[in-house]
Amino acid sequence: MFQPKKPIFGANYYPEAWERSQIDEDLDLMQKIGLNCVRIGEFAWSTMEKEDGKFDFSIFREVVDKCKARGMSVIVGTPTACPPRWLERKYPELLLESVTGRVITHGTRRCVCPNSKGFLWHCDRIVEEMAKEFCDDENVIGWQIDNEISPIQTGRGCCCPNCVKGFGEWLEEEFQGDIEKLNREWGAYIFSQDYRNFTEFERPHPEKWTHPSYNYAWATYQQKTHLDFIKRQYDILKKYVKVPVGHDTMSDFSLDRNRLAKETDVIQFNHYWYDNEFWQTAFWCDLYRPMKDRPFWVTETSPCWNGDMVAWHARPKNFNRINVWLPVLMGAECTNYWLWRSHYGGQELMHGACVSSAGRPMHVAAEIKELSEQFEKTGEFLQGTSVENSKLAVHTSFKAFDMYRFQKLAVDFDYYKSLTEDIYKPLMEAGLRPDVIVPHKELGQYKVLLTPFVLNIDEDEMGKRALEWTKNGGVWIVGPMTDIRNGWAAKYTKEPTSLLEKAADIKIEYTLPYSQQPAKLAFSDGGTGESKNTLHDALTVGEKAECFATYANGEYLDGKAAITVTPYGKGKLVTLGCLPDGAALAKLVAYFAKERGILPVKATENVVTVNRSGNGETLFCAAEIAQKEGKVVCPFEGEDILSGKRYRKAENVVLAPYEVRIIKKSKA
Amino acid sequence: MFQPKKPIFGANYYPEAWERSQIDEDLDLMQKIGLNCVRIGEFAWSTMEKEDGKFDFSIFREVVDKCKARGMSVIVGTPTACPPRWLERKYPELLLESVTGRVITHGTRRCVCPNSKGFLWHCDRIVEEMAKEFCDDENVIGWQIDNEISPIQTGRGCCCPNCVKGFGEWLEEEFQGDIEKLNREWGAYIFSQDYRNFTEFERPHPEKWTHPSYNYAWATYQQKTHLDFIKRQYDILKKYVKVPVGHDTMSDFSLDRNRLAKETDVIQFNHYWYDNEFWQTAFWCDLYRPMKDRPFWVTETSPCWNGDMVAWHARPKNFNRINVWLPVLMGAECTNYWLWRSHYGGQELMHGACVSSAGRPMHVAAEIKELSEQFEKTGEFLQGTSVENSKLAVHTSFKAFDMYRFQKLAVDFDYYKSLTEDIYKPLMEAGLRPDVIVPHKELGQYKVLLTPFVLNIDEDEMGKRALEWTKNGGVWIVGPMTDIRNGWAAKYTKEPTSLLEKAADIKIEYTLPYSQQPAKLAFSDGGTGESKNTLHDALTVGEKAECFATYANGEYLDGKAAITVTPYGKGKLVTLGCLPDGAALAKLVAYFAKERGILPVKATENVVTVNRSGNGETLFCAAEIAQKEGKVVCPFEGEDILSGKRYRKAENVVLAPYEVRIIKKSKA
Amino acid sequence: MFQPKKPIFGANYYPEAWERSQIDEDLDLMQKIGLNCVRIGEFAWSTMEKEDGKFDFSIFREVVDKCKARGMSVIVGTPTACPPRWLERKYPELLLESVTGRVITHGTRRCVCPNSKGFLWHCDRIVEEMAKEFCDDENVIGWQIDNEISPIQTGRGCCCPNCVKGFGEWLEEEFQGDIEKLNREWGAYIFSQDYRNFTEFERPHPEKWTHPSYNYAWATYQQKTHLDFIKRQYDILKKYVKVPVGHDTMSDFSLDRNRLAKETDVIQFNHYWYDNEFWQTAFWCDLYRPMKDRPFWVTETSPCWNGDMVAWHARPKNFNRINVWLPVLMGAECTNYWLWRSHYGGQELMHGACVSSAGRPMHVAAEIKELSEQFEKTGEFLQGTSVENSKLAVHTSFKAFDMYRFQKLAVDFDYYKSLTEDIYKPLMEAGLRPDVIVPHKELGQYKVLLTPFVLNIDEDEMGKRALEWTKNGGVWIVGPMTDIRNGWAAKYTKEPTSLLEKAADIKIEYTLPYSQQPAKLAFSDGGTGESKNTLHDALTVGEKAECFATYANGEYLDGKAAITVTPYGKGKLVTLGCLPDGAALAKLVAYFAKERGILPVKATENVVTVNRSGNGETLFCAAEIAQKEGKVVCPFEGEDILSGKRYRKAENVVLAPYEVRIIKKSKA
Repeated sequence: MFQPKKPIFGANYYPEAWERSQIDEDLDLMQKIGLNCVRIGEFAWSTMEKEDGKFDFSIFREVVDKCKARGMSVIVGTPTACPPRWLERKYPELLLESVTGRVITHGTRRCVCPNSKGFLWHCDRIVEEMAKEFCDDENVIGWQIDNEISPIQTGRGCCCPNCVKGFGEWLEEEFQGDIEKLNREWGAYIFSQDYRNFTEFERPHPEKWTHPSYNYAWATYQQKTHLDFIKRQYDILKKYVKVPVGHDTMSDFSLDRNRLAKETDVIQFNHYWYDNEFWQTAFWCDLYRPMKDRPFWVTETSPCWNGDMVAWHARPKNFNRINVWLPVLMGAECTNYWLWRSHYGGQELMHGACVSSAGRPMHVAAEIKELSEQFEKTGEFLQGTSVENSKLAVHTSFKAFDMYRFQKLAVDFDYYKSLTEDIYKPLMEAGLRPDVIVPHKELGQYKVLLTPFVLNIDEDEMGKRALEWTKNGGVWIVGPMTDIRNGWAAKYTKEPTSLLEKAADIKIEYTLPYSQQPAKLAFSDGGTGESKNTLHDALTVGEKAECFATYANGEYLDGKAAITVTPYGKGKLVTLGCLPDGAALAKLVAYFAKERGILPVKATENVVTVNRSGNGETLFCAAEIAQKEGKVVCPFEGEDILSGKRYRKAENVVLAPYEVRIIKKSKA
Repeated sequence: MFQPKKPIFGANYYPEAWERSQIDEDLDLMQKIGLNCVRIGEFAWSTMEKEDGKFDFSIFREVVDKCKARGMSVIVGTPTACPPRWLERKYPELLLESVTGRVITHGTRRCVCPNSKGFLWHCDRIVEEMAKEFCDDENVIGWQIDNEISPIQTGRGCCCPNCVKGFGEWLEEEFQGDIEKLNREWGAYIFSQDYRNFTEFERPHPEKWTHPSYNYAWATYQQKTHLDFIKRQYDILKKYVKVPVGHDTMSDFSLDRNRLAKETDVIQFNHYWYDNEFWQTAFWCDLYRPMKDRPFWVTETSPCWNGDMVAWHARPKNFNRINVWLPVLMGAECTNYWLWRSHYGGQELMHGACVSSAGRPMHVAAEIKELSEQFEKTGEFLQGTSVENSKLAVHTSFKAFDMYRFQKLAVDFDYYKSLTEDIYKPLMEAGLRPDVIVPHKELGQYKVLLTPFVLNIDEDEMGKRALEWTKNGGVWIVGPMTDIRNGWAAKYTKEPTSLLEKAADIKIEYTLPYSQQPAKLAFSDGGTGESKNTLHDALTVGEKAECFATYANGEYLDGKAAITVTPYGKGKLVTLGCLPDGAALAKLVAYFAKERGILPVKATENVVTVNRSGNGETLFCAAEIAQKEGKVVCPFEGEDILSGKRYRKAENVVLAPYEVRIIKKSKA
Repeated sequence: MFQPKKPIFGANYYPEAWERSQIDEDLDLMQKIGLNCVRIGEFAWSTMEKEDGKFDFSIFREVVDKCKARGMSVIVGTPTACPPRWLERKYPELLLESVTGRVITHGTRRCVCPNSKGFLWHCDRIVEEMAKEFCDDENVIGWQIDNEISPIQTGRGCCCPNCVKGFGEWLEEEFQGDIEKLNREWGAYIFSQDYRNFTEFERPHPEKWTHPSYNYAWATYQQKTHLDFIKRQYDILKKYVKVPVGHDTMSDFSLDRNRLAKETDVIQFNHYWYDNEFWQTAFWCDLYRPMKDRPFWVTETSPCWNGDMVAWHARPKNFNRINVWLPVLMGAECTNYWLWRSHYGGQELMHGACVSSAGRPMHVAAEIKELSEQFEKTGEFLQGTSVENSKLAVHTSFKAFDMYRFQKLAVDFDYYKSLTEDIYKPLMEAGLRPDVIVPHKELGQYKVLLTPFVLNIDEDEMGKRALEWTKNGGVWIVGPMTDIRNGWAAKYTKEPTSLLEKAADIKIEYTLPYSQQPAKLAFSDGGTGESKNTLHDALTVGEKAECFATYANGEYLDGKAAITVTPYGKGKLVTLGCLPDGAALAKLVAYFAKERGILPVKATENVVTVNRSGNGETLFCAAEIAQKEGKVVCPFEGEDILSGKRYRKAENVVLAPYEVRIIKKSKA
């Protein structure tokens, strides 16, 4: 039986764009460079079905067979991102209508309407045909549905009449037919914006000053129809296919991964960060890894530079090494380069690749080969172990992101930027790298939990569940800007929060916007800090709560509590009335983490560490991510599998720029 | 009989957006905080007329009645800015078509066509119904027509076929059917742009390089139809209503106030300037006050921060005090906060308010209370006195603004910016605060008049009347860029001006644009100055005129006159060939003002002073506007009504940051 | 017989926009100022043909006759840039449809569809009527077709259904009906973008991520139809007209001059550079002069400031002198001011002119007069001599420009900017001013040739012809980014170049994008340099080639060859794998130029020199272009015709700011 090499290490290949006679040459060269997998098919509909109903998978069959013969794995992608010209002529309504009212024309990707029945029928058919064709190939190790689906990339998703009609019907269902409920929950009486029935809703307007709840509702509806589109293919594929099926997404917040993770088998992740952004790569690994109980896949990453019709800056030497190793250490079992051979035409012809359009190996060929050799050496250990949990988590919410798109609340506030730069990065650099978890995630394994910026906490009952978990002993650090919006992005009207004020026994006297200057914070232990640009709650405490930090020079805020702590069952509820700067936040988290027995890793801030264990082995992995020397204290006696170097317990491990260590604990 | 408290001090209230049961709670809280007025109704059409012809004003009736019972005043607004959804369905053509060709959809405000007959019929009906409903309520002290009508906010007004047709008909009337006259006056033969008849005119085009006279004509037509829209409501209301009727406008040049002031009873003014912009507030007070013979109303101002779907920066402590006091000292008899209770949904849910969405008083509640107490103490005096005229005026022209929109003439020239920053502010800071007057204003009460940047001076015969006034003894300082365009924004062809050259006995040899560097100016008294970025006339003088300043290093301008003085009857004509810098301008104005017996106020530049008198009382008011210490010399012996502090004549009055003094002259 | 004064020195005149009675006054004033030519007609269609078929050229007849009587020349322009309103009503499809889908409306210029049959029929007719009217006037010395035609100014040319249909037909012809050839040559299988037949092509889409070969093809088709439009008028005019016919173009790359130069009689050139851009004026003279065997015409230049609805900055004193002299020295026989009398209305009413709208001479009148006197003095010599060739040429390609529009290749690479700032300017400042030649130009007269950035070298077989020329002794410096794209802007797939690698006996190992930092270059002579932001080839040399420069710190590039030299027949092939900085490039060119006997001019970098000879006379002309003192070594004994000053051979000629010298060689 076919056994895929692990880590799966491959490249994305578009044989349909080249002379068919080149396939052997390409596969030979891949093997020579050290790759063991290809991904194929994702945009090739016009090749697979040149005419309506005439399927020809022969070129892909040839690739799959020739890979099998070479011991290489294949990931098959469905081609529905790019309908062929004849299908667009048959169903013009399958083409996406943008918010400006323009229908997209032939010759791009992902410009389709997810609600076009004719289109869906043809998608169903080709997906089923592909499933039948390749379901029995043992070297087909996984499937990818479509590519990088995003209801945001095109601004507002598809705004065609079909989608607008569907929007009204969806709202009707959401509100059980009660239009008055919608008017009240949205706050629609402002500007006579109220509706009388569910057929009255119109398309988004590119020039109109629009109600934020309408905008949020439209975005949510687009999420729904795009995720329905994925689920539909998943269900068809799973009638035939045993191997994992997923959908590859970029590292952004454009698609709701909370639902995606529930409805597919494997997280497929594309990342293209530059050399000063490895901490972002780490963020996404810490976000994607906890979503499922199985390792995630890197379905795309760049072997050298990014590009489209311009080649972006070249990356520095050895970038390639850390770019591949970091996700593998942090939980990936698969890495695929985008792309194998540089396109010779088209919108991405200047993107970096493994070999040039003329088939010549690129400058990074030796680095790729070296990686493949390191994987040979370490694969066994890596596959046998899994990443240990840090017991610390930060909540993230794709619904919050969609709410903030249409109401930023605070001046220049950017949810993604703040979550990564103001929350994740300071914790990471302080040696307290958290899991970044979505609402449906079970909290049992965590001791300390942060929930910043989550406007509404009803999704998957995350608020109630977090309170319950707190009662059982957790430390829940909540805020700022959490639990202040109903499910339709409007404010609560009786109290400012749905549960926080009561649970924490505090009162939000008033909430002010950010001033030109940060507010000074005075902590009860004598420490100080400054606030970042979120809203600022002026808090007072009830009998059960205590003030943890006070505003010190905020004019109107002076003397009010900024951060409070409230015992809650066996746990604690920590309310952040504003966001402390990175150092103050890390100190605060470290304080409560320590209470729960979580200690920071002792490393310079440019070193990412990962503890892995399994099969009786324990690994301590470290990677330098900022192209300078790094240091970390070795937690046990062991040997670096890559270099053979031995370390004593508590010895300083010195890492050269972009160096990786995988230290295997010695057995006593 | 009902006697409204003065100054009227209120808040804008949207009971239609809340539970009806909250009305008592809201009104109680208003009274507690110190407010005595509410404004209601402006966007609430869908509540007042849920179905075509079924009127229900009961919620507003309840507010009016409950206010009456509490001794509170009410200002009623007509709701025509926001037609309900059913009306849009009945007359789709009532929705504004933007310059891009897109018709605006439901759910915003002020996106209506002022020429839609169906719409006008319904506006008429609801306005009449409201007038009937509330005309007999003695605590309804005034009416507001619609809200912040602006033909500019949407770019080019309404571009629907109806409006385009109306545009041709309007032009036909303006040119008495003579298309050749239009071609000649516009200069339309350039690029074969001439027309053969009045049916040929098309809509503005968003991508076309368009003739500036067409653009100006279109803007003027939009002014006309929007002002007709206001006049129409005014006429209906005045059939029933005795109290003042106005239309509230923002502090900008988007609507022609010259006509508006003539056609309504009271100036209604909304201002939202930030703490470093109080001098702008002063500018608008000095512009609005002289328009009518009665005090103006501040219909809207912010109690704390501005915002829409984001809360803008918080304002500093005590901002609220000066923000309310300044207009009251300068001539307002009414101030209303926007808004009472923070919206819980909608496009402005992040705007600052008096109480939060949850009904909790905001951080400024104490300041509001303090203001209400100060008003109690000073109201009698303020209402009994009125602002004394400074005898100095600056012309402004909304038509000039509309001309400059489509031809800036000089590099980076901005009419509004230059009028306020280069003219008003230097004079204000030099203690020579002028009235800012519109063309129809009678000149009799002034001694010195500036007319800068008014491209065409035919409006209300302002040029001829100013000459006549000069002949009778006034000093008219004209220019730069004044009297150089005909009524359609084209140049004169025989001479560069229509009357200025002849009257001043000067010759404009040539006119140059601004260079990279200012021109140096040498004044005849030995003083120097520099020019700002307007056009530069190279002047020579005839026998009657004298050179007042010469260009000193302007290359081509060297030796030419830049400023001239010409005796004219009993007065003087001062021609500015370019704009001197602020210091030089203030010095020049002071020179001629002194000749006419006008002396500057002796105060630091951060202090605004107002002389008020009436009923045998004399008040000297001073306000510090830059949040630092200020000083002003007390003109007489008296007592500050607010603090009780007494001052001797010529004593230095020291003002703390944002402090206000109202010094009542002692009776000898 | 009428003999036009030379240099032709005139102004562009729009009598149709003024009272007809002013003609005499205008012409008298022109003569007084010193002008001897007028250009008329270009936008005056509505005056010439007020109604369909009723022609009235009388106003222009009057101008021509009155000029004849005064000994003044006339250039007649066809008015097809501005169809009258009645013609647009007759054929609405003649109006250009922009890429956004909006059809342009009446009242601008050059917004016409070059493929509208009705429009073309009317253009033909009026052009023929004009030709008949003026073909026998001996003082009509030339014709101008339309005005500044540019398929780029409107973004994507005309996107109307007519043009889209024509696009498909044109592609069918280009590919001899073989759609598969198109798919392969474009690389269209990416994203299922392949086509099945030539009717499937759609219009450009303003929001779509579009295939670069489609975009390039569309641009090329627009070039074709716009040039066809010009050719059509040329053919009609030449049935009647003996004098030179041309089309005036701006100084930009928006129209393909390679074809234009072949199909018209005289290069007509409009330039409006500012005072710090005279080196750009020189670039365009060096580009336009070699195109034809006859002197070029400056059909438009500004007498003072540029402007449209704003007057741009005033230019410094004497700008006017160098602005007119420079092109005349460099090969122009004609200079016309745009414009005579300032427009009093319309889109360009703030543009500088010779006299104001009120008919008053502008500040530059004396400078114009002085120029006309200098022309009197020098005309004979200038007309008798022509510019000597520098034997050094740089290739430019309008097709390359169109390719780069849709794929920049390298970060921030701008073809025009790099060609002028990184190639032309350093050479010019080093005293090695090259001709800038288009593909069809014969190479025989040159010794050294640079071909940078020309992606495809098949146009007019320029690549093959250059190789042949090299074989015969030339030094061909090729690259970077030359010969790397097929005729449809896609890459070659078997080798990276079509002929360069083989001919130069080198191998492009790999090509990298620009990094954040330039690469260091080590030249074989010990010199150093840095690379600019183009792509970087890592080269290795075969047996015949030699390394001329190596990469010194380019990380992945280290040790690879950056520049190579290969003997080729009697000549040399120099391959630039990247672009050296200006100093290094100038040194490299000087090295090979010296080998071929070309020595740099000895002058400061702010002096442009021109050698002219003919009729037994030799002139050495020098102009200072940076408004500071300049120096140049006089190559022979002679006398400056302008000042009468005499110079010895090798004497330093010192030039005051903006000074011009025309030194006539003494006859021994």
